[in-house]
Amino acid sequence: MTAAEVVALLHAELGDRVDLSPAALEDARSDKSGHASAGPPLAVVHAASVADVQATLRIAHRTGTPVVTRGAGTGLAGAANAGPGEIALSVRRMDRILEVRPDDLLAVVEPGILNADLNDALAADGLWWAPDPASRAISTVGGNIATGAGGLLCAKYGVVRDAVLGVDLVLADGRLLTLGHRSVKGVTGLDLTSLVIGSEGTLGVIVGATLKLRRLVPGHRRTITATFPDVRAAAVGAAAVTASGVQPAIMELMDAASLGAAHALLGLPAPAPGAAQLTIQTDGPAAIDEAESIASTLGALGAVVRLAADDGEAEHLLTVRRSMHPAMESLGTALIEDVAVPRSRLPEMFDEIARVEREHGLRIPTVCHAGDGNLHPNFIFQGTEVPPEIWAAADDLFRAALRLGGTLTGEHGIGVLKRRWLADELGADQWELQRQITRVFDPTGILNPGKVFAP
Amino acid sequence: MTAAEVVALLHAELGDRVDLSPAALEDARSDKSGHASAGPPLAVVHAASVADVQATLRIAHRTGTPVVTRGAGTGLAGAANAGPGEIALSVRRMDRILEVRPDDLLAVVEPGILNADLNDALAADGLWWAPDPASRAISTVGGNIATGAGGLLCAKYGVVRDAVLGVDLVLADGRLLTLGHRSVKGVTGLDLTSLVIGSEGTLGVIVGATLKLRRLVPGHRRTITATFPDVRAAAVGAAAVTASGVQPAIMELMDAASLGAAHALLGLPAPAPGAAQLTIQTDGPAAIDEAESIASTLGALGAVVRLAADDGEAEHLLTVRRSMHPAMESLGTALIEDVAVPRSRLPEMFDEIARVEREHGLRIPTVCHAGDGNLHPNFIFQGTEVPPEIWAAADDLFRAALRLGGTLTGEHGIGVLKRRWLADELGADQWELQRQITRVFDPTGILNPGKVFAP
Ligand SMILES: Cc1cc2nc3c(=O)[nH]c(=O)nc-3n(C[C@H](O)[C@H](O)[C@H](O)COP(=O)(O)OP(=O)(O)OC[C@H]3O[C@@H](n4cnc5c(N)ncnc54)[C@H](O)[C@@H]3O)c2cc1C
Ligand SMILES: Cc1cc2nc3c(=O)[nH]c(=O)nc-3n(C[C@H](O)[C@H](O)[C@H](O)COP(=O)(O)OP(=O)(O)OC[C@H]3O[C@@H](n4cnc5c(N)ncnc54)[C@H](O)[C@@H]3O)c2cc1C
Repeated sequence: MTAAEVVALLHAELGDRVDLSPAALEDARSDKSGHASAGPPLAVVHAASVADVQATLRIAHRTGTPVVTRGAGTGLAGAANAGPGEIALSVRRMDRILEVRPDDLLAVVEPGILNADLNDALAADGLWWAPDPASRAISTVGGNIATGAGGLLCAKYGVVRDAVLGVDLVLADGRLLTLGHRSVKGVTGLDLTSLVIGSEGTLGVIVGATLKLRRLVPGHRRTITATFPDVRAAAVGAAAVTASGVQPAIMELMDAASLGAAHALLGLPAPAPGAAQLTIQTDGPAAIDEAESIASTLGALGAVVRLAADDGEAEHLLTVRRSMHPAMESLGTALIEDVAVPRSRLPEMFDEIARVEREHGLRIPTVCHAGDGNLHPNFIFQGTEVPPEIWAAADDLFRAALRLGGTLTGEHGIGVLKRRWLADELGADQWELQRQITRVFDPTGILNPGKVFAP
Repeated sequence: MTAAEVVALLHAELGDRVDLSPAALEDARSDKSGHASAGPPLAVVHAASVADVQATLRIAHRTGTPVVTRGAGTGLAGAANAGPGEIALSVRRMDRILEVRPDDLLAVVEPGILNADLNDALAADGLWWAPDPASRAISTVGGNIATGAGGLLCAKYGVVRDAVLGVDLVLADGRLLTLGHRSVKGVTGLDLTSLVIGSEGTLGVIVGATLKLRRLVPGHRRTITATFPDVRAAAVGAAAVTASGVQPAIMELMDAASLGAAHALLGLPAPAPGAAQLTIQTDGPAAIDEAESIASTLGALGAVVRLAADDGEAEHLLTVRRSMHPAMESLGTALIEDVAVPRSRLPEMFDEIARVEREHGLRIPTVCHAGDGNLHPNFIFQGTEVPPEIWAAADDLFRAALRLGGTLTGEHGIGVLKRRWLADELGADQWELQRQITRVFDPTGILNPGKVFAP
């Protein structure tokens, strides 16, 4: 079947939800990783309903046409990039909140709603969906689920995996499955909901989700920064906070290069050479006590500790951390990496990053969710394609993370950019078993081919 | 191949770990559900190492012999029952703690360790593995993982699914896979760890687990009972506590029949006719305030509230709840059911239980983890086989739970006893898809055949 024939079938069933405009086709080629597919897909379908998704999949299945599901396209692994011969299926317009149950602490939503829009609506009921990727204002709940997103708050409040009760999934052949349950507990059969979380569009299209909510945390927040002479000392400080048993809501670490770049972007005085910083926030009824306890733990380790006097100052301290992404973009194209290690290995991982910097002659500005051991080393280059010498350094860094008992990706996923390392972490047997599981959902391999499990 | 030949192969490789004693064979026929297999298995293997498990599976795979993995055999779904022609593979002797990392809040253990033994050891480091089935003193960590066990504390502290970072799994053909990670976060590939949790021995043998620990909760506990004129009022009371935003550690509900039976067993004065009771415990730094807030919420609803003055009195109040299981056994054989519904539907579920009692002419004493909507209705009968009229009533009750948006099993699993209802909850398409996933792990279907997915 030719591309034109597939497009004609789509048109016949989906009418003006089929978008062939050059802008839409171009847009669907890339996500926020900087990486783009080899060329435009054959069409973008803007699904407005579950039936639209099913119709698209039925046509794709019948014609053997690959389908790349897209939420907001903010992914950092190239997993939503659609290329030649593929249908880009956007669920962004399916953005309704179908139900909110404060008594059951759950909400039922369509996949295309933005995380921040959902949370704005939930706040009216004093509720909150905890996963908070830094991209919460621009990424979809469906995309958050499909990537298993994390964020700043997850050491205390959990990741997506902890916050989803069930998903409705359209399979490769267009059939609709209802996975999971509405009750808090449930062990009926295999936990396919968890399997779909983080599956990056390879198992089906998430067309609905039953989310586990929390009540908004009462009380004030307290915000602290702690500046250390070097990054290793800061990592040791973070470990000491974790070991003290106090659980901050946020604990972010910026190394010297990222701190310097953020200060420069914001026009602040340059930090002392080599200085690294922890930005910590406590919340809840014990926020004040916890902040004081953390301040004394870190002060005893020689940090220069600053406790924000009010919300304005707290905002200012957090702005430095939030400026990391734009600060990197001001230096060039950023390949934002995403390894995670057991928390106790953070100092060693920073030693490894320093080694990779030395041996490969690069700077690798790094921020880290220090409360959970998830690091984002940034590789900066010019142009749009990651140069081979950057991949060589990244390879070195990935292997170091694995040696330390860590993982290739803490929250961004495998997509296209890390598929060649996947078997290094999983082992050949598990890699093959996982690929076979995708084939149970998608026997002909039309769902996001070339992503995650492509050899 | 004859049974004798399979046993000879096992003997040759495993020597005295192969147990043919009549007592062991008889023991392996049943769990604590009361249900037993049709006859003794061909052998019990007491594995002492991962290599033993692999050797057993290799022989089973080569000879097409079914394998039933057993932890402590305390399951309530008949899932560990081994029958004629099957190998019962016990991992109970693999009970070492391999590693405890207070700084990373993780432990690595063998599967056969008892939950309570693990927690006794962890307490020395001020740590705790939160899943707390009422059977914690007699059930294994591996069994807890394989069933996705819950317990009394899980509304506040989570279920097994929230407390496992990774598992080592021996596949049907004897290969060993390492699933999951040691870091807090990780989204590399599909989440097979979650898939194994609750898989009831159908995907492989869990030979090791990396557990996510918590720090022991500081501060005192406060224990309350609240007595209501009837069970519906008690369910409304539980919903009011949940709605108030205070999160108790424990919130158990006993209906009139179970409260009466427990009082009788303990020689306490009979409760008022029809009276039902909530037993609630708060913990952590805010325990006292929370207990007072709960007491006033429930008092306002007309409950008779009793706040334990000291630990001794608290122990006494909890003993009534803990006596439920022996109290039921004193009445006859108990089929302990395990449905869960969204918390807001608890009063309606109690109405449904009352209806089933009326229409089927039965008493169904019920306890309930009211904080998470998980009910244990008990069907009492004489003898060892569940009579058809009891199954008819249970069927009615299961369908009621599903109608209310609930699930067949909150924590005990499907096993043999609920397999005929599985497709009612999952739907035929999902049932078949789940069965196909088991075939990826176990192509020839030797792992716990006849359990969960048997039609
Ligand atoms: C500035 C910035 C900050 C970020 N910060 C974080 C962070 O803190 N934590 C974090 O985890 N990530 C972060 N990200 C990455 C990204 O925002 C997340 O991965 C997010 O979850 C992607 O959501 P999306 O809607 O944009 O999905 P997309 O990029 O559109 O898709 C991502 C993947 O999910 C699949 N997918 C999307 N929707 C569906 C669906 N309905 N059904 C099936 N599959 C689907 C796609 O096929 C693709 O594989 C950040 C990105 C940026 C640009
Ligand atoms: C008095 C009493 C109270 C109980 N209270 C609770 C409760 O509060 N909450 C709750 O959830 N349950 C409860 N149970 C049920 C039971 O204790 C749990 O299901 C427990 O998790 C089973 O553990 P086990 O070691 O006895 O497993 P078993 O009964 O030996 O096995 C159960 C299932 O797990 C599989 N299995 C066991 N070990 C492995 C392994 N290493 N690898 C692969 N598969 C394996 C078996 O094949 C079987 O399918 C209770 C039972 C009793 C008798």
